[in-house]
Amino acid sequence: MTSTRIPLTNKHHTGHESIVCIGSAVFGGGNFSVIAGPCAVEGFAQLYDTAILVRTAGASCLRGGAYKPRTSPYSFQGLEQEGLKILQEVSRSIRVPFVTEVMDAGEVDLVEKYADALQVGTRNMQNFKLLKRLGKTKKPVLLKRGMSARADDLLLAAEYVLDGGNQQVILCERGIRTFEVCTRNTLDLNIVPYLKSKTHLPVVVDPSHGTGVRDFVIPMALAAAAAGADGLLVEVHKNPLEALSDGEQSLWPEQFTDLMKRLKLLLPVVGKTLMRPLSQHES
Amino acid sequence: MTSTRIPLTNKHHTGHESIVCIGSAVFGGGNFSVIAGPCAVEGFAQLYDTAILVRTAGASCLRGGAYKPRTSPYSFQGLEQEGLKILQEVSRSIRVPFVTEVMDAGEVDLVEKYADALQVGTRNMQNFKLLKRLGKTKKPVLLKRGMSARADDLLLAAEYVLDGGNQQVILCERGIRTFEVCTRNTLDLNIVPYLKSKTHLPVVVDPSHGTGVRDFVIPMALAAAAAGADGLLVEVHKNPLEALSDGEQSLWPEQFTDLMKRLKLLLPVVGKTLMRPLSQHES
Amino acid sequence: MTSTRIPLTNKHHTGHESIVCIGSAVFGGGNFSVIAGPCAVEGFAQLYDTAILVRTAGASCLRGGAYKPRTSPYSFQGLEQEGLKILQEVSRSIRVPFVTEVMDAGEVDLVEKYADALQVGTRNMQNFKLLKRLGKTKKPVLLKRGMSARADDLLLAAEYVLDGGNQQVILCERGIRTFEVCTRNTLDLNIVPYLKSKTHLPVVVDPSHGTGVRDFVIPMALAAAAAGADGLLVEVHKNPLEALSDGEQSLWPEQFTDLMKRLKLLLPVVGKTLMRPLSQHES
Amino acid sequence: MTSTRIPLTNKHHTGHESIVCIGSAVFGGGNFSVIAGPCAVEGFAQLYDTAILVRTAGASCLRGGAYKPRTSPYSFQGLEQEGLKILQEVSRSIRVPFVTEVMDAGEVDLVEKYADALQVGTRNMQNFKLLKRLGKTKKPVLLKRGMSARADDLLLAAEYVLDGGNQQVILCERGIRTFEVCTRNTLDLNIVPYLKSKTHLPVVVDPSHGTGVRDFVIPMALAAAAAGADGLLVEVHKNPLEALSDGEQSLWPEQFTDLMKRLKLLLPVVGKTLMRPLSQHES
Repeated sequence: MTSTRIPLTNKHHTGHESIVCIGSAVFGGGNFSVIAGPCAVEGFAQLYDTAILVRTAGASCLRGGAYKPRTSPYSFQGLEQEGLKILQEVSRSIRVPFVTEVMDAGEVDLVEKYADALQVGTRNMQNFKLLKRLGKTKKPVLLKRGMSARADDLLLAAEYVLDGGNQQVILCERGIRTFEVCTRNTLDLNIVPYLKSKTHLPVVVDPSHGTGVRDFVIPMALAAAAAGADGLLVEVHKNPLEALSDGEQSLWPEQFTDLMKRLKLLLPVVGKTLMRPLSQHES
Repeated sequence: MTSTRIPLTNKHHTGHESIVCIGSAVFGGGNFSVIAGPCAVEGFAQLYDTAILVRTAGASCLRGGAYKPRTSPYSFQGLEQEGLKILQEVSRSIRVPFVTEVMDAGEVDLVEKYADALQVGTRNMQNFKLLKRLGKTKKPVLLKRGMSARADDLLLAAEYVLDGGNQQVILCERGIRTFEVCTRNTLDLNIVPYLKSKTHLPVVVDPSHGTGVRDFVIPMALAAAAAGADGLLVEVHKNPLEALSDGEQSLWPEQFTDLMKRLKLLLPVVGKTLMRPLSQHES
Repeated sequence: MTSTRIPLTNKHHTGHESIVCIGSAVFGGGNFSVIAGPCAVEGFAQLYDTAILVRTAGASCLRGGAYKPRTSPYSFQGLEQEGLKILQEVSRSIRVPFVTEVMDAGEVDLVEKYADALQVGTRNMQNFKLLKRLGKTKKPVLLKRGMSARADDLLLAAEYVLDGGNQQVILCERGIRTFEVCTRNTLDLNIVPYLKSKTHLPVVVDPSHGTGVRDFVIPMALAAAAAGADGLLVEVHKNPLEALSDGEQSLWPEQFTDLMKRLKLLLPVVGKTLMRPLSQHES
Repeated sequence: MTSTRIPLTNKHHTGHESIVCIGSAVFGGGNFSVIAGPCAVEGFAQLYDTAILVRTAGASCLRGGAYKPRTSPYSFQGLEQEGLKILQEVSRSIRVPFVTEVMDAGEVDLVEKYADALQVGTRNMQNFKLLKRLGKTKKPVLLKRGMSARADDLLLAAEYVLDGGNQQVILCERGIRTFEVCTRNTLDLNIVPYLKSKTHLPVVVDPSHGTGVRDFVIPMALAAAAAGADGLLVEVHKNPLEALSDGEQSLWPEQFTDLMKRLKLLLPVVGKTLMRPLSQHES
């Protein structure tokens, strides 16, 4: 096996866009899905109320962190296994799948028991032990771009997962580090058409971490869709002012509803279809 | 006069979005216009043919460089005054205004005689002598962001022009320098909602220089519109393979036509109206 | 415990520079030590020969990777446990301690059995599970700055280790990602005086990864010493042209000898003392 | 003339390092000179007192801005021609040459009448009209790297001056824009060995703008010398607390004296000789 073979992420391997499904949320091949929810799981009521709101607005997948990578050891680190249980309970009760972050190869066994999809955070994009372990899981992997990763580094990180045997990888742009300080990170939408030109894997965008500013999330979410993304990852909190983390970048529920309405209008312009959540009575 | 006064660029100065017109091309206040044309004026036929094409597709303003800032002294430096004459002749014959770059305070007298609007290039964003001189012109100024300029630096550069007496300034995002190499620059659309939240001035985006890759121009142009831009600056060449500069980022005419069709569909989603060029018979 | 307490990394906690020892290699408090060796352990002879050369030239600590974090899954991944055994054998036979990278919390148990100090690589600077586990080891930790980590992020990463109970942390600058392409990374020596002004922990510099270019290693190593670093981490290979990884940035043995001679002359100018390796007969 | 010819800046053109002299301040060919003085000329007494101090400490060239490029139009813009007169008067009275910035092609005629060398500021590195005009002056040019200029962009900017007929160009590293915020800019010393490997032109470093923090200037100045620079550009003010601009990065006179003492010890390690100012009685 040499480095000159065609990478598994390369679009020439499939000849068409791969479709990755997290339950009824479908990404790729013209399908566009929105993953929404709070930054961190703070308790059942907080998650349940937010989950109902985002489902009603049209999100087809839930997000929420049980294990939180925090720059400071003294910041809130997440509810851990208790958070996973809450995520699963809420997810089942409202019939919306969920994705959550796994931070360490040693925790995959536990997290994959609960989650419908496993997220690799930006700080772990090149945690190769974790990537190799995720090559062996049967759950889809949402791989976030590192803050200083070039597009080709992201593709090679995905290659670790595909080479391990798991073809269900969704790539996620979430902002890079630049000199600009008017946003928390610089959401780099250029990578969307670049990745779509190189790989068959679906590409989603996280405008919440990408900008870090609530009022910039809707314009950048729409921009991501216009640029060709296959989905979004959006932080929504029933009351952002009370969020334990990332409140300043979380949408208010009515903002999220507005975003979903605009997306429904915009997606046809770029030939995409918005996936709806399953109704309570669908099977 | 102290630095603690409210800057002239600040939206609190006007209470509403400023509208800046380059002939029939209107920017701001819900109006969206597209400026298109070749990177450099290479001759009458090249410019005329391209101008007709972009006008037919819906561009309401022409672009083209007579004075070209080139990294190397041995690259094509532009036709200079001869280029200005060609620009004016083509512009008048097809009734579309044009914007062109002025590189030095000492050349403003000449360029403002020909051009409908004066462009300040990215390398000159902090050429303060030039900015001060442009405060005294009666023509609109298209001010491009420097490659390493923060959003607030761009606003302060515009402040030089406004403070000099010229309120007709259009800000232009055109890509910044980052570690990412999959695009020539990193087009930073985050600055669009940021600027719109701070200033009354219109904001346009140049996806051609911003990406440097032809096939990424349409997705990023649509993304710019979705992010809230008031217009676009797009390089089009009747045959990009023969362009003397920037051919690899210039759209083919049919690509530009496709872009304009999609823009017409997308702009209503974000509450904008696309300005059409004057018909040959309108007055 | 709140985030407003004085961080454990802060110099006000100790009132003086901390000294961290890896065997006879002493860092901090005016002591300067050089860690040298190949990028990766390739076999006993390769490591032994290089180790003898760097010891003779004055290196007081050996480096070499058994577990290699590689951007591509198809690049050489290291000899793993076999590499650890070779490192220990060579280290004991020539009486020079060694530092080697540990890539995952789950591997600390194994690596700490062999190594004199544990390195956290740039891609793992914010692998918080790993940092927490290293708070429980009794071996010193060499913590490399992430490619896009701000100085304060590096200090907070170190805080995880100190907060876990391990005070023996050496910080390492190894280059950041910028737009500049004339070097592999941009070695950021500015962080040296910054860190020295903020923390009691020793700071070392890796000019090999920092520049990625063999001929720039000596000037930047001397510059690091002049800027106030407490030590260096340098890649040396007995024949860089045959190295399995990073050959283009590894010094030839005679270059390393030249570097050590110049360091001995330069360090007194900045009030530092170069630590020598133990002689074969010292106890 | 094509772009494939060997650039005039290339070391193969001369086969040896070029020496550029600003009066008795000699740069290149093993000669190291220090340019020092206040950021801006504020008046005769301020400049004279500081000039005497830096001359006594060993600076062989004076710096001071008469025309100041300021991000905000409401900041102090310099004394302009009055400043030039003060610079010349002080310079002649203490027999130390001076370098000062020229911001516009149209001002070269005036500034070159007064100054011993002309500085191109970072915001003007690609002001090609200015560079072309400086190709026609007989005074040496100190060309500062743009904040987002790659090393090869800097060389091509110098090429404009050399191609115009002026071979006396000194290149100056002064910090680039990165994500790091612990310093005002990121002084990029890596460019020193890179430039020295490519060009025959002398290279100096400005650690004052490069760091923006007074206490980091001495370590980074020494680091620059150790990295192979041919000189320094340092801001010194007789009382930094009263400076009209850049006070927070200006050295106190006693700090500058300390720097010069250390430089005298360090330079021999890298084979350089420190140029002394002319004594009052030398001819």
